[in-house]
Amino acid sequence: MSWQNNLRSVSPYIAGEQAELTDMIKLNTNENPYPPSLQVQKVIEDFKSDNLRLYPSTDAKVLRKALATYHHLNTDQVFIGNGSDEVLSLSFLTFFNSEKPLLMPDISYSFYPIYCGLYHIPYQKIPLADDFSLSVNSYFQENGGIVIANPNAPTGMAISLQEIEEILQNNQDSIVLIDEAYIDFGGESCLPLLEKFDNLVVVQTFFKSRSLAGIRLGVAFGSAEAIAHLYDMKNSFNSYPIDSLAQKIGEASLNDETYFQKSVSKIITTRENFKKELIKLGFQVTDSKTNFVFVHHPKVDATTLFKALYEAKIIVRHWNQARISDWLRITIGTDREMNTVIQFLKEYLKNKEKSY
Amino acid sequence: MSWQNNLRSVSPYIAGEQAELTDMIKLNTNENPYPPSLQVQKVIEDFKSDNLRLYPSTDAKVLRKALATYHHLNTDQVFIGNGSDEVLSLSFLTFFNSEKPLLMPDISYSFYPIYCGLYHIPYQKIPLADDFSLSVNSYFQENGGIVIANPNAPTGMAISLQEIEEILQNNQDSIVLIDEAYIDFGGESCLPLLEKFDNLVVVQTFFKSRSLAGIRLGVAFGSAEAIAHLYDMKNSFNSYPIDSLAQKIGEASLNDETYFQKSVSKIITTRENFKKELIKLGFQVTDSKTNFVFVHHPKVDATTLFKALYEAKIIVRHWNQARISDWLRITIGTDREMNTVIQFLKEYLKNKEKSY
Repeated sequence: MSWQNNLRSVSPYIAGEQAELTDMIKLNTNENPYPPSLQVQKVIEDFKSDNLRLYPSTDAKVLRKALATYHHLNTDQVFIGNGSDEVLSLSFLTFFNSEKPLLMPDISYSFYPIYCGLYHIPYQKIPLADDFSLSVNSYFQENGGIVIANPNAPTGMAISLQEIEEILQNNQDSIVLIDEAYIDFGGESCLPLLEKFDNLVVVQTFFKSRSLAGIRLGVAFGSAEAIAHLYDMKNSFNSYPIDSLAQKIGEASLNDETYFQKSVSKIITTRENFKKELIKLGFQVTDSKTNFVFVHHPKVDATTLFKALYEAKIIVRHWNQARISDWLRITIGTDREMNTVIQFLKEYLKNKEKSY
Repeated sequence: MSWQNNLRSVSPYIAGEQAELTDMIKLNTNENPYPPSLQVQKVIEDFKSDNLRLYPSTDAKVLRKALATYHHLNTDQVFIGNGSDEVLSLSFLTFFNSEKPLLMPDISYSFYPIYCGLYHIPYQKIPLADDFSLSVNSYFQENGGIVIANPNAPTGMAISLQEIEEILQNNQDSIVLIDEAYIDFGGESCLPLLEKFDNLVVVQTFFKSRSLAGIRLGVAFGSAEAIAHLYDMKNSFNSYPIDSLAQKIGEASLNDETYFQKSVSKIITTRENFKKELIKLGFQVTDSKTNFVFVHHPKVDATTLFKALYEAKIIVRHWNQARISDWLRITIGTDREMNTVIQFLKEYLKNKEKSY
């Protein structure tokens, strides 16, 4: 016997590398290339540190209300957590306490099975089609819950509002969790379905489209009943998850709609141009509605290309995982960064041709 | 069947009321009456919001190293979490996965049994003596872990380094978690025992003695092995729990030792003076080594006094709980605030005498 016998064994998630090379082009963790709204800078400059001696609002009250107004929901339909990973984690713990399996696509955010391992939630991976498309019919079976990222990661592909509605209609006895971390880049949010379904929970984040990865703000929207259960869970885990400054920063970002729309549409334009160039170079590219693309070249081994890019100080993401080991995920940076990537790929492919 | 059947039921913690009265004297949640170090103000003013588009360091690398240096430990002996509540929560989940009961004092931080409920950890409350003192012998029995707040909350009473060593020596097959949230106000930290015991985990916080309740920084210290397990757990729950600004603020606070010592010693002086005055008024007062006092008046019902104080806009804390329902916990504020409390109590007791 030893204290080690009482440890709970887990298989932790491995986050994308935070490489620290100088002059690198960092396209591996889907960070936004543009700074947050100037309102954020202002709110930080104006912040009086005296306030920090006091506890923050336990439910980020002002921000919660602002988010409700923004999305035309009631305040009690909004939950705020310490980044969307925490929101997902607490949601899994709250809603998926069943002996029936949680259903999820076989290719999706790799944190989902880790939460399942942590909380002993049985789960079943539902294979996507060969083209990574999702068939809603495969979710019409007994389950203890459903989690789908829409748009999906790392494929970037989205499903329609109607498809989500079909899943909800056929699963009214389970929570259907739709992870909309990337929704602002072109997908269609299913928030309007909250009017019809009390078993829908939608998770979003401030980090990608609002350039606030550094501040950790994640959100869940749902029926007042579901959200109340999520708060009960949060209050069993940590009373004050969101610090005072983060709350203010979230409010400031939410108030600057013009900047938000502008920076999101810049990224979408860059993505579409980047996609066209990739296709010209012979890449296969999924129809991404996110701030990244998922790409494959029939003539190039993905691991080899990943390494070549890395040596050129262009950091992208690759998974040594069945079905996607031939693919790379590339975050959309600035036009300039993406042009550098295209120039590199042109050279790389040209040299490769020569060596045949 | 409905989705409600799959909910995990919990009994959430209820935090001290964040009353929003004007001109109130808020002495109910142990917040520090003094602002944080001026270095904190400076680091906020100098912070460039552009940095927020990037993820924070997953383990608050720089702050982690600074804390290790500060406490003469190795970096791998330091864990940083989103407030000490999160650190405690993850520690319970990591270390107390046994069928034998976790031992804790019957009167202690009321979040402990809530974590146990959440994670299905069996626990056994060990009664403190009538004077709220802790007998180490009662912890020499089979267990799946031990958690003791030192100084204890809400009694404020501390145990000695030697007593903790005895507990460790007799429980080498369990993690002994010492919660030192209030240690800076006069208790003796057991960090030096880390040299001898790999089953000791010590939790501290930035919020009380460093006036940073608003920023959410909690810390665990332990053997490199124990801390590695805690990080595995954290990485199964949330990759990036500490935002970039909080990391910088923590560093700034840690660097200003002079201010830290000064504000802590001011609070200790105020506490000792306040205690003397209370004793003069006939109160029974525990030997608190914290930034609060725990008091009882033989002639006054605690609930009645709590309400009278509340009406005078002096907010303190009371628990309707066996053994302590006759007691009030009063946070140490400024000298001026504590004088106001004493003046109120003098009047109150005088009027009470009259009404006999």
